[in-house]
Amino acid sequence: MEPVINDEFYMSLALDMAGRAQGQTGINPVVGCVIVKGGAVVGLGTHLKRGSSHAEVHAVRMAGDQAEGSTVYVTMEPCSHYGKTPPCCELLIEAKVKRVVVACEDPNPVVAGTGIERLRQSGIEVKVGVLRERATLQNEKFAKYITTGMPFVTIKTASTLDGKIATDTGDSKWISNEQARLQVHSMRHRHQAIMVGVGTILADDPVLTTRHEGVEGQQPIRIVVDSRLRISPEARIFKEGASQVILLTTSEVDPSRIELLKEAGATVLPCGDGPQVDLKVALQELGRMEIGSVLVEGGGTLNGALLKERLVDRITLYLAPKIVGGAGAPDSFNFEGIHRMADAVRLDSLEMERVGDNVFISGIPVWPNERETGTT
Amino acid sequence: MEPVINDEFYMSLALDMAGRAQGQTGINPVVGCVIVKGGAVVGLGTHLKRGSSHAEVHAVRMAGDQAEGSTVYVTMEPCSHYGKTPPCCELLIEAKVKRVVVACEDPNPVVAGTGIERLRQSGIEVKVGVLRERATLQNEKFAKYITTGMPFVTIKTASTLDGKIATDTGDSKWISNEQARLQVHSMRHRHQAIMVGVGTILADDPVLTTRHEGVEGQQPIRIVVDSRLRISPEARIFKEGASQVILLTTSEVDPSRIELLKEAGATVLPCGDGPQVDLKVALQELGRMEIGSVLVEGGGTLNGALLKERLVDRITLYLAPKIVGGAGAPDSFNFEGIHRMADAVRLDSLEMERVGDNVFISGIPVWPNERETGTT
Repeated sequence: MEPVINDEFYMSLALDMAGRAQGQTGINPVVGCVIVKGGAVVGLGTHLKRGSSHAEVHAVRMAGDQAEGSTVYVTMEPCSHYGKTPPCCELLIEAKVKRVVVACEDPNPVVAGTGIERLRQSGIEVKVGVLRERATLQNEKFAKYITTGMPFVTIKTASTLDGKIATDTGDSKWISNEQARLQVHSMRHRHQAIMVGVGTILADDPVLTTRHEGVEGQQPIRIVVDSRLRISPEARIFKEGASQVILLTTSEVDPSRIELLKEAGATVLPCGDGPQVDLKVALQELGRMEIGSVLVEGGGTLNGALLKERLVDRITLYLAPKIVGGAGAPDSFNFEGIHRMADAVRLDSLEMERVGDNVFISGIPVWPNERETGTT
Repeated sequence: MEPVINDEFYMSLALDMAGRAQGQTGINPVVGCVIVKGGAVVGLGTHLKRGSSHAEVHAVRMAGDQAEGSTVYVTMEPCSHYGKTPPCCELLIEAKVKRVVVACEDPNPVVAGTGIERLRQSGIEVKVGVLRERATLQNEKFAKYITTGMPFVTIKTASTLDGKIATDTGDSKWISNEQARLQVHSMRHRHQAIMVGVGTILADDPVLTTRHEGVEGQQPIRIVVDSRLRISPEARIFKEGASQVILLTTSEVDPSRIELLKEAGATVLPCGDGPQVDLKVALQELGRMEIGSVLVEGGGTLNGALLKERLVDRITLYLAPKIVGGAGAPDSFNFEGIHRMADAVRLDSLEMERVGDNVFISGIPVWPNERETGTT
């Protein structure tokens, strides 16, 4: 089908460009920029790495003299403040661009509309909101981090149709299919850290690296929730994979155990006075370490604890067409439980897709008293 | 889009006609027939009710003289035996049709290809297998019943994403959405009987009738699995709804209790010597009563027992985007459990579809040692 050339046409390219850089900008947003003049693309730019040039800088540089009188498509409001780089607004004003089309505002409270305002004041025509939904979704992790200082938390779980993540003997190989497992590696690539419970380490001794077919993946930081530091210094996670290993524990643990694990290469973070890791404190600590997104691949206990404490920003499930039963088989969300169906945690902004014989379901958890309407 | 006129074009109409009669032919198959001559439809017929004319009879009657030299599209092999009606093969031969296109063979062992053979012997050109998959699926209930004497058993369940059919307090209103619940009424319409466990009756006192918007539905027989006859003679199921109520129980129960429930209007069927209803015996009994299909809307215990005994022919799940947790919250399939993930009961011939914010998943359960390949 022939595309229609309009603002969406160029903005969707800018979004595609930004999307390919997900996982490589750290706590920074991904941003794409396309400059068009006289019916031709004259500049392209993407923010590639934290501390390096913004998307607009790359694009304006490519456009050169052509930037004058052009239309600039940018997936997020150009910055107006001096951060690690000079403000992009000033750059666009100096380059004498005619029109700026913005997908969404910058959720950073330091910017929050001031960039758009600055451009308008200088006489540039600004249109805001083209493909806004896609742009907002693309930077959901950045928005969470920049507004709360805590990482965006995605729970990923693979279960049977009866909600089990293993059989009653603990066997979980394999629930999801190959295609789903490849998608999970892509999720790892797009998060700054992976988090598991120590139970997963003790059961499977995984390395938690990102593997793709043919191409390299970003290797996220590996975080283990381990209230009693039961992990062995011999665990594979310390021997394989290049990225940092952080152990979340409590101040109750034996300092000599901490030393031993530090020697094995771990960063040990006591979070709360125990007996369990205070997960909120842990996320605040991780935020301070500039970890802006965490993919939780833990078992039902970690999932349940995070859900109960309302620390989850997205839940992604892969359901396999299998039934295993068993009263002792672990549930995907193991927590005290909600008594009224109307009070169930609900997933909003649902995406559902068939992945071979698995179903992919992803949404934003909404807790009952946060819900706008009472429809259940 | 313009359709292409070919054998599939007319067969799909015959299948549509048959499909609309699902639920009204009892243990008989649904069959549709379209007769085409000189590029024009000259006859249409559907088998509407057990004991009444077959599809071919209606269609040949409509076609009249035009049947001579025509092509007959029929969704199932014409019968060759004297059943409740004379054999359709003879009718088509007498009508001097030129060509017969058949979607699938008759699974009835009394027919099983002899109809096709008879037509060919008489010089009629026969083509078999046009839209075979759709035709076979359409009469999956008939095929099960005619080959085993037992009803086709569909388990329908609605659960949360963590596999719960209620919260830990037993609250289940509502898990699925309105659209899913309407689809369940359509499933009731297409089964001869609905089966629940007595727990469902004691908890919700449902009437188990079929409701549609604007049109009437077939009202299936209502079956309650009640090993100890705990159902009250005052239950709404006895007062409302016109269809028969069958209680499946054991020979251990008190005869006076049986009498009391018979007076309330129940048919009581002891199945096995207890303490639990022997479900296989029960299905054989129901088969003898000419019940060819049962929709199980019971709780996790009935679902689990049927699954464990491999008495299930289709499983249909509606998953709602909710999480409730709770160790005491009932699972959709409550049974002893399978120990190895590779031995999980697996759904084959999967259908998946989004129904608003619910996911519809339906498939044919395959137990491990029945599986052709070891891919899990």
